[in-house]
Amino acid sequence: MDYFEAVEKRYSHKERFLPDAVPVSVLEQIADAGLRAPTGYNTQCVSLVILRNRDEVQKLGDIVGTNALTSASAAIAVLTDSECHRAKKYNFEMEDYSAAAAQMMLAATALGYVSLWLDSPFFDDDSQAAALKALGASDRYNLRVVLPVGLPDGEGSRRSKLSFDERVSYGTLGSSN
Amino acid sequence: MDYFEAVEKRYSHKERFLPDAVPVSVLEQIADAGLRAPTGYNTQCVSLVILRNRDEVQKLGDIVGTNALTSASAAIAVLTDSECHRAKKYNFEMEDYSAAAAQMMLAATALGYVSLWLDSPFFDDDSQAAALKALGASDRYNLRVVLPVGLPDGEGSRRSKLSFDERVSYGTLGSSN
Repeated sequence: MDYFEAVEKRYSHKERFLPDAVPVSVLEQIADAGLRAPTGYNTQCVSLVILRNRDEVQKLGDIVGTNALTSASAAIAVLTDSECHRAKKYNFEMEDYSAAAAQMMLAATALGYVSLWLDSPFFDDDSQAAALKALGASDRYNLRVVLPVGLPDGEGSRRSKLSFDERVSYGTLGSSN
Repeated sequence: MDYFEAVEKRYSHKERFLPDAVPVSVLEQIADAGLRAPTGYNTQCVSLVILRNRDEVQKLGDIVGTNALTSASAAIAVLTDSECHRAKKYNFEMEDYSAAAAQMMLAATALGYVSLWLDSPFFDDDSQAAALKALGASDRYNLRVVLPVGLPDGEGSRRSKLSFDERVSYGTLGSSN
């Protein structure tokens, strides 16, 4: 799919997913697009865990119970490694995982699937600890986001966007072209 | 350009840029791709300032003196609005601007240009304050990243990447498929 078409089509699918399996090769192509995102100092401290089926996704669904994780048959968990990120002068943990997540959402869209940037359910300490345990990760890792991947169970709602002119200036903030 | 081709071709151009002008319509298409990135709560607190020519870019080049900003004839400055981001329970300032920056780098690539995620020169307080002043932005804003956009003055170096298997697991962290 053309890059700008993927950008335009991408949205956050907050509703349920169809139970259809997603080929592992598709998930790997999405993951690969995430790995190719820029990382501060090129440290590449972000790790991905591909969840291949309903059972693997449901382990996270049992913890947080969101629509996406109690219905999707595939997901990609995005983990940062606090020790790896801490090794340099500046810590680009947030930037690195965010760029990877953005590129993976676009990749899912480009391949005809929908996804969701799911993070806040894992922010509290208990959910975070349970999710890391389910993913076999030690507490040096942070589960930053889970991207369910699949086909939508019904049309997902698109949120309204501010206009271009409300967010873009020229030369100085607030100036028009 | 195909999405995955853009992902593969994108790299961080740390060397100098050619002085050729970049059409404002190109910069607007890149900015639009950034605006379409997901934002936490759909708050869309990220603002972009398009720098249209050598003089506008040089205002930042005078402050930080990097190769990119003393040579490029176009750039997009990415600002976050601390008051806007602070208005919700969770603050997604870092995620929001990072997703926008990632989408804009890919857009530049898809349109045949190169770019760079330039942030650390603006981290110290003096540079940050001077850059905000040059951009006409008050101190409620943070200049998070500047993306120079242009044609490369010579081949840029690609950094080495870890292998897919070093960063991707299946089911649990460290497990292969």
